[in-house]
Amino acid sequence: MTRFVDVSNMVRWTAGRGPETIISEMMQYLEDDFRRWESFDKTPRVASHTPFGVIELMPTSDQETYGFKYVNGHPSNPARGFQTVTAFGVLSDVHNGYPTFLAEMTVLTALRTAATSGMVAKKLARPDARIMAMIGTGTQSEFQALAFRAALGINSVRIWDTDPAAMEKFVRNMAPLGFEITIAGSAAHAVEGADVVTTCTADKANATILTADQVSPGVHINAIGGDCPGKTELDAAILGLGDVFVEYDPQTRIEGEIQQMSADFPVTEFWQVLAGHAPGRTSRDQITIFDSVGFAIEDFSALRYLRDAVEGSEFFEEIDLVANPDDPKDLFGLVRELSPIGS
Amino acid sequence: MTRFVDVSNMVRWTAGRGPETIISEMMQYLEDDFRRWESFDKTPRVASHTPFGVIELMPTSDQETYGFKYVNGHPSNPARGFQTVTAFGVLSDVHNGYPTFLAEMTVLTALRTAATSGMVAKKLARPDARIMAMIGTGTQSEFQALAFRAALGINSVRIWDTDPAAMEKFVRNMAPLGFEITIAGSAAHAVEGADVVTTCTADKANATILTADQVSPGVHINAIGGDCPGKTELDAAILGLGDVFVEYDPQTRIEGEIQQMSADFPVTEFWQVLAGHAPGRTSRDQITIFDSVGFAIEDFSALRYLRDAVEGSEFFEEIDLVANPDDPKDLFGLVRELSPIGS
Repeated sequence: MTRFVDVSNMVRWTAGRGPETIISEMMQYLEDDFRRWESFDKTPRVASHTPFGVIELMPTSDQETYGFKYVNGHPSNPARGFQTVTAFGVLSDVHNGYPTFLAEMTVLTALRTAATSGMVAKKLARPDARIMAMIGTGTQSEFQALAFRAALGINSVRIWDTDPAAMEKFVRNMAPLGFEITIAGSAAHAVEGADVVTTCTADKANATILTADQVSPGVHINAIGGDCPGKTELDAAILGLGDVFVEYDPQTRIEGEIQQMSADFPVTEFWQVLAGHAPGRTSRDQITIFDSVGFAIEDFSALRYLRDAVEGSEFFEEIDLVANPDDPKDLFGLVRELSPIGS
Repeated sequence: MTRFVDVSNMVRWTAGRGPETIISEMMQYLEDDFRRWESFDKTPRVASHTPFGVIELMPTSDQETYGFKYVNGHPSNPARGFQTVTAFGVLSDVHNGYPTFLAEMTVLTALRTAATSGMVAKKLARPDARIMAMIGTGTQSEFQALAFRAALGINSVRIWDTDPAAMEKFVRNMAPLGFEITIAGSAAHAVEGADVVTTCTADKANATILTADQVSPGVHINAIGGDCPGKTELDAAILGLGDVFVEYDPQTRIEGEIQQMSADFPVTEFWQVLAGHAPGRTSRDQITIFDSVGFAIEDFSALRYLRDAVEGSEFFEEIDLVANPDDPKDLFGLVRELSPIGS
């Protein structure tokens, strides 16, 4: 049987354990997997693009466990009452190929994207960072705020979104959790004096959410929203102001902010920093940029964490996904047409 | 909610409707989709190879519906009590990216592989073919026999397998269904006088199940087992004796029998025959070879057929795979930590 965490169980488990605790614990799984980055199979995700959006499959394997995520990205979904991003994922045993774990990943992806940003910021942002600007207060924004508090203790957030209702929603969700929130009058106002700038908008276009003159020395930019060809958020000039860190170079060159730059634009894969092979932040004034697009290993870590966390709990059920005939060569014996008795 | 056909429902539905009827009906869906081949997104499958076997994702889309299959292939599984091949698949709506249908595909893949062979043989085998040789009587063999009866009325099967128990199993399953079965003493004996030769063995090696001198004029060879790099069944010389038909050229060059041939070895994509763009069988003595590796569009057709066939029936349940907050931008509202009353 395959263990299955559906939406209802995921929601109950997340609300019960607490999203901030989950993000903290998940960061540890992410760090463990990023440190052994070289042991994973890595391929750019397989994307099916249409005018409506994109559907992607993101597989990876550490030779013991295989995992993949199905995820869509449809920027016009919210206007029609649907989620921009929904997802589910699977883990399986490499030794026999059987799927062992299936989970909704709409909520889990929100948690893992935030946990990844937090893990990276712990290494790249100034340790004394106290103020985050959040440009875009959609689905991902609350999770990001919790991740930066978990990673760096940041409690003060300056927000901006073109949709006032989305900002109100952020305040409604986060003020009760002890965040000090400033609603800015523009993106420029939001980033003024911020130590960390998170851009997390969903337009499927080469937008300029942030321009070079708005970026102060010492800032860490956490660029989340630009994640497919033709979809970027940062003024290209910003990328030349600091050092750019990515998840997986071949994928980010296609999907990230650096799609705006030449093919030899220098970047550092973040796992190198974690493993001690490359420097992270080297001075107080250095501008660091995490050009995040999301990579399969992060989903693998998130699924592995969830699988372990719900073990022995009430938060999963078992489903019958793999046919299991007594004689493995006799699949047909399972489905032989039933003869009426006496015929 | 997402409709889900688990193993138990699949088995009950298949046994109730009858595998031969299902293969017949599925052939129609396959033909419909092969005729509109050009309207599909096509990519070679994404394979993760290990010493144990392979795990693959096979996506495709017709711009309205997206589908993919997860499938493994582990030749040493049966010796350890597991299936060589297990699978499951998903259909989703392209317009919003939501998964709408999930099904076990271990049984469904067996049916679709057979239905594909049947569809192809209807065009390529001699219409008066009466005897099939079946080399390899593993999991796929009974389904193949039913497909050739459904497609061509073939009722007489000559079988050979290195494992006597697998041949006994074939006889036990198929004799009651009215097949006339001859157990041959060797592969050479089995193919003697056969109009159609199906090779369906599971060794992960460049094997020679069939040699050129065993191939008579007019035969249709249905080569199913050679389906990944380094895994072939036919003597390369056979491929020069006749005309080779494939599913999707770029994938078959990597995975099929023709991996043994030069990159410019001429082949015909089968959809071209169905669409009237290329000839199929042109003479009684022509040797036709279907170098089958399995392609994503076949799984798409199979899932589409199953989805339609179980509609309104008792053979599916609904699962909660997609989070659905009232405000699509307020995913966090679903999982906000619950505060104890009075706190």
